[in-house]
Amino acid sequence: MTTRTVCLALDAQDPLAPLRARFDLPPGVIYLDGNSLGARPKTALARATEVIAREWGEGLIRSWNTAGWFDLPKRLGDRLAPLIGARAGEVVITDSTSLNLFKALAAALEMQADHPGAPRRVIVTERANFPTDIYMAQGLASWLARGYTVRLVDSVEELPGAIDADCAVVMLTHVNYRTGYQHDMAAVGSHVHAQGALMLWDLAHSAGAVPVDLNAADADLAVGCTYKYLNGGPGAPAFIWVPERHQASFHQPLSGWWSHAAPFAMAPAFAPADGIGRALCGTQPVVSLALVECGLEVFEETDMAAIRAKSLALTDLFIDLVEARCGEHPLGLVTPREHERRGSQVSFTHPHGYAVMAALIERGVIGDYREPAIMRFGFTPLYTSFADVWDAVEILRAVLDEQAYDIAASRGAVT
Amino acid sequence: MTTRTVCLALDAQDPLAPLRARFDLPPGVIYLDGNSLGARPKTALARATEVIAREWGEGLIRSWNTAGWFDLPKRLGDRLAPLIGARAGEVVITDSTSLNLFKALAAALEMQADHPGAPRRVIVTERANFPTDIYMAQGLASWLARGYTVRLVDSVEELPGAIDADCAVVMLTHVNYRTGYQHDMAAVGSHVHAQGALMLWDLAHSAGAVPVDLNAADADLAVGCTYKYLNGGPGAPAFIWVPERHQASFHQPLSGWWSHAAPFAMAPAFAPADGIGRALCGTQPVVSLALVECGLEVFEETDMAAIRAKSLALTDLFIDLVEARCGEHPLGLVTPREHERRGSQVSFTHPHGYAVMAALIERGVIGDYREPAIMRFGFTPLYTSFADVWDAVEILRAVLDEQAYDIAASRGAVT
Repeated sequence: MTTRTVCLALDAQDPLAPLRARFDLPPGVIYLDGNSLGARPKTALARATEVIAREWGEGLIRSWNTAGWFDLPKRLGDRLAPLIGARAGEVVITDSTSLNLFKALAAALEMQADHPGAPRRVIVTERANFPTDIYMAQGLASWLARGYTVRLVDSVEELPGAIDADCAVVMLTHVNYRTGYQHDMAAVGSHVHAQGALMLWDLAHSAGAVPVDLNAADADLAVGCTYKYLNGGPGAPAFIWVPERHQASFHQPLSGWWSHAAPFAMAPAFAPADGIGRALCGTQPVVSLALVECGLEVFEETDMAAIRAKSLALTDLFIDLVEARCGEHPLGLVTPREHERRGSQVSFTHPHGYAVMAALIERGVIGDYREPAIMRFGFTPLYTSFADVWDAVEILRAVLDEQAYDIAASRGAVT
Repeated sequence: MTTRTVCLALDAQDPLAPLRARFDLPPGVIYLDGNSLGARPKTALARATEVIAREWGEGLIRSWNTAGWFDLPKRLGDRLAPLIGARAGEVVITDSTSLNLFKALAAALEMQADHPGAPRRVIVTERANFPTDIYMAQGLASWLARGYTVRLVDSVEELPGAIDADCAVVMLTHVNYRTGYQHDMAAVGSHVHAQGALMLWDLAHSAGAVPVDLNAADADLAVGCTYKYLNGGPGAPAFIWVPERHQASFHQPLSGWWSHAAPFAMAPAFAPADGIGRALCGTQPVVSLALVECGLEVFEETDMAAIRAKSLALTDLFIDLVEARCGEHPLGLVTPREHERRGSQVSFTHPHGYAVMAALIERGVIGDYREPAIMRFGFTPLYTSFADVWDAVEILRAVLDEQAYDIAASRGAVT
């Protein structure tokens, strides 16, 4: 039987345990919301000071070149690449996930428009996808006015059948933000390709959370987020991946001067840069962008296999303890038990999920809530310990046993 | 005759002189490139520390609400509004200028598509506009595939005639980035409306530089930059203005979840927010965004009339001194002498402009260079003194008299 002592022993053997010291976490908090906003790397403050005081304050305009500000999207993209199975020169960190999705979708539709055969005018995605992905697809489809539509699929089981000869591109979030369900990237992609469609992955809840190998899975395009498991800072710029084989045919309408082949020629006609640079648009928020590096540096001290092993151990432990110690309460596991289908979060429903989560946060266990009735707990192996899991479940048990939650509390939530 | 002593006397009488202490500028530098990247407000470092250490590090996910991160685009937009003649609730600070231009152009085209009469499918702009504006318009027009085109006008004189019954929207940068030419916002806008078109202004070189009154000028839409005269920090998020009268009909394709009426309802169908919120898209880079406030705060200690009076005095002085003291050198004034047509910069051509500017920078006078042969000098009344102008001209004179520049130097430039 698991006890807190057992958890402490697991921590003592945990090869990732020393990395917790790389993060600044407030005392008295068990932070299980790194799937929404990652914790602060301790180096972030010094890096911000360097960018603001020295690079901006002293270097001024010269820092675009001397401090390498122009190169940040590519340089940091190269540093992120190994975490998602990308090659150098295939990723840039830039803009928001929503915007990068728009670029990727637009490019995919154009690639398909060039193909022979019947016009493919359907974007397939899941109704349960994170809403902004759906909204961006709807925005693009309705504005193109060539009969493009977005097809929302109601379940994972219905997905294969929904990918037909009309389908131009399948856009899926690899790990679902609400349930933690993880698609089989290679298998889904293979089916999509067999139907003649392109495969676009949103890695918002995957990058830094689970092993991803985009090139091995033969994916076509991907986007993702740096402020969740990558610990890049609040609202830090997102990323977009375009594999080498698609770069020459990648064209997107957000063709700002940073995506131009020669931005400082100031030519009045657009010509896209060679390579991944064409996925950029306009000037980037340098301070926020530079801080992404502080999060990426920590990953270079370990690897995704070690992170995944601990992630599964943490989520297994959490599921086991909740079911063993809170079993009399109406909690429903939403996240797959099967390792291969699980991301790095665990979600439970509870009829008063919002109120229970509010009570947990009040007691220092920070997870979050998503409609309908879902309590989300994110597990970030870089800074979450096995003892944290034990303590979080004990606090959950106390809140539930004591009914120490206010059912009438008003609602609000944050991704 | 003007002497350095006269300049020092002007500084002694300058009501804006005390504001220089609000900025961090390196010793030995005369910074005449605030039109490209504004100087660092001294408060920026403390604000960054607060956001990173306290709001991110301690508040973690809770800071989206408790630290007001979600409200930053609107709250800072309201603070910027008085500088451009906007009302509260008409401006958000978000994304890049390029992206905001895309949203505004798309919305303008749709507003025109609803109008009766012949289809208006032409976007009119100047060939001399900042390239990213042209690229974004070209990107939008080519992707809409309804026959939209971008018409490039070769001179200010040809502009009125180019606005015809096919013209949907006129998109102009109010103050030209290269020449410093300032359009007559009210007169141009009035002509545009008389032709049945909409008027979209790019205020990148106007906001914080010259008085702007968008509502008084009956403008339709506007975008602009916070990292130039507004001193918001490198690559800080840009702004977009949608007047109240157009908000209900403002629809744009970059419809991410931040532009949704109820982002946390997580509904699978997009419904735009009421008001200016519909001009947002995805999650914003909080650290960079928060620093914009440090620049805006300084403007609240003065007003645009005082800034304009000093700006004209500085640019008059610079033109007079260069012509008086460097008159034997082949310098050509590109910027209008007429006050009403001048922004807050002065541009001179020189056959070896790039090399001369490099030599100036080497000696601590930081301006920049733009093809063809143009040396740009930006004058930012908040931190530039009359003695700075004198000293800069003396250094320019020395560089020219001594031919102390390397004609063979390689080229590079930054906006």
